[in-house]
Amino acid sequence: MTDKTRIAIVGYGNVGKGVHRAVLANQDMVISGILTRNIDRTRSQLVDKVEDIFSADAMHLIEALAERTDVAILCGGSKNDLPRQGPLYAVHFNTVDSFDTHDNIPDYFKMMDGVSSYHDNVSVISGGWDPGTFSINRILAEAFLPGANAKGFYGLEKQGGLSMGHSDALRQIKGVKDARQYTHAIKKSINRIKRGENPDLTPGDMHWRECYVVLDKNSAEERKRVEQEAKTMKTYYAPYKTTVDFVTQKQLDALDKERAMAHDGLVVATSETGEGNKASIEYKNVYESNPEATGSILVACARACHRLSKRGEKGAFTMADIAPADYSIHSKDYLLENRM
Amino acid sequence: MTDKTRIAIVGYGNVGKGVHRAVLANQDMVISGILTRNIDRTRSQLVDKVEDIFSADAMHLIEALAERTDVAILCGGSKNDLPRQGPLYAVHFNTVDSFDTHDNIPDYFKMMDGVSSYHDNVSVISGGWDPGTFSINRILAEAFLPGANAKGFYGLEKQGGLSMGHSDALRQIKGVKDARQYTHAIKKSINRIKRGENPDLTPGDMHWRECYVVLDKNSAEERKRVEQEAKTMKTYYAPYKTTVDFVTQKQLDALDKERAMAHDGLVVATSETGEGNKASIEYKNVYESNPEATGSILVACARACHRLSKRGEKGAFTMADIAPADYSIHSKDYLLENRM
Repeated sequence: MTDKTRIAIVGYGNVGKGVHRAVLANQDMVISGILTRNIDRTRSQLVDKVEDIFSADAMHLIEALAERTDVAILCGGSKNDLPRQGPLYAVHFNTVDSFDTHDNIPDYFKMMDGVSSYHDNVSVISGGWDPGTFSINRILAEAFLPGANAKGFYGLEKQGGLSMGHSDALRQIKGVKDARQYTHAIKKSINRIKRGENPDLTPGDMHWRECYVVLDKNSAEERKRVEQEAKTMKTYYAPYKTTVDFVTQKQLDALDKERAMAHDGLVVATSETGEGNKASIEYKNVYESNPEATGSILVACARACHRLSKRGEKGAFTMADIAPADYSIHSKDYLLENRM
Repeated sequence: MTDKTRIAIVGYGNVGKGVHRAVLANQDMVISGILTRNIDRTRSQLVDKVEDIFSADAMHLIEALAERTDVAILCGGSKNDLPRQGPLYAVHFNTVDSFDTHDNIPDYFKMMDGVSSYHDNVSVISGGWDPGTFSINRILAEAFLPGANAKGFYGLEKQGGLSMGHSDALRQIKGVKDARQYTHAIKKSINRIKRGENPDLTPGDMHWRECYVVLDKNSAEERKRVEQEAKTMKTYYAPYKTTVDFVTQKQLDALDKERAMAHDGLVVATSETGEGNKASIEYKNVYESNPEATGSILVACARACHRLSKRGEKGAFTMADIAPADYSIHSKDYLLENRM
């Protein structure tokens, strides 16, 4: 028996690999196994040795792995994977996921809360940076600075930032072989907030979205249909100025190398205290590897999830429902002495 | 009966006034009364009408006020006020304070936890920005970026930033009539962290402290004694390069006008994810009025304190032990729908 937190990784794409690397960087964690749709591919892409790699298709293997796992981290996409995987895994495991379709978070929370409560498990939903650390910072900044309207911006650098969720959404369109979406912040809106204007901004005032798509069959008809489907996709693309460029897989791979998986972002909130004294709070992160940083945050969520479960809690939590100390590898005494 | 959180303010100095202004800015809060050492002075300095202003000397009035108060916010200094006031008030009230002598936080926590647990109260200790929001950000950044050594810097602007706790400590020295301390960040240390060096920095590598002191009796002997006592003051000044200038009250008042009570600061943490991908998190605040911003944070702590108490919790909490959602004026449903 180990007293380390035993992590099962469900899905071994970019985020799954990021989670695996993050577990290696946290000495209180260990991998109990990997569940995947494609065992051979996963085995060939492992970032470190893992014995127990099982097909996510075999319920009896999932149940057996649950017996020796503290938390399953669900690394699938929000559009098609998590709405199905979430409730399945919450029956058997404490879970952590990065469900990031903002409009559907209340319904997803309700579903996960129902399942995990019933089965005495804890589900931490919507971990990562947005939703996640950015949500925390929106909520805190507005609590500390009444009147502030905290806003998140992504893709501050010229090349923009790769959005994994939005890239995944493009790949769900019929006829799309592969795709990337780079998000760009609209700077003049950031500056308006920094000046203390507290403007009412629509999503489209804050960002625009740059898409690169590889088609199964590159015909004029297909290009027209896919571009139309992308640009009108609810919540993902419809509210934004969106550009869609069709490229070859080789061109997309080159783009991947060039822009890598870097992403950055900023939460900014401005208000006044007393009679006209300006007060502002900014939170910024710069990640050279977005999936690795997301994986790293999810692993800290898994630590908190395990603690909440050991404390007798059950049901769904977001990162806004978790105390900062619960994410830390350190004891409460250590934090009181050294980090306060 | 109101369903607003009823706040008693204990001590009506700069922070007490900041708390009062912050209560006015939060529509779910109301002042139940003020406890003060000097009723006349408090009455003459009120930022808004308050009927119930009592002497903090009269135990029966303190006990009577406790009957119709949800949270007492203790606005005294850490050096002499809070170690005595904290346990007294935690007998009768849920409390929030800004105890900021970092080295003594574990002992202060233990004392307050003992008293408030016994009396079924909740005490939120060490609220504000450091300790407080900066502590949260140190803990979170290090949890999300293993290997990072998060550091806080204060006084980024040329004029530095007024430290209330350190100014208060100067005023405790015998023969000191009034004093201000401006903290200055040492920029080259910030840059080393931003470059990803993860250096081991002593307190003195990060800041220097600029003191202005008005003496009761300005003699060469007094100047020598007070300067010596200031510069050797444990935890407050001994670890830093400290300058002490003796000025008249008029000069100090002019300095107050010129530099006001602005303060700013930055928490910065840098590490790597995976194999050498740089990852950094920065949290920055700029407050034109430090005591008002501190008051605003303390009021959000009072909201959380009241919620914890209503939930049946008891004992001491730091801001690291409180979930972000608990500071928010909004319901959990609102936050799920709008702020995640």
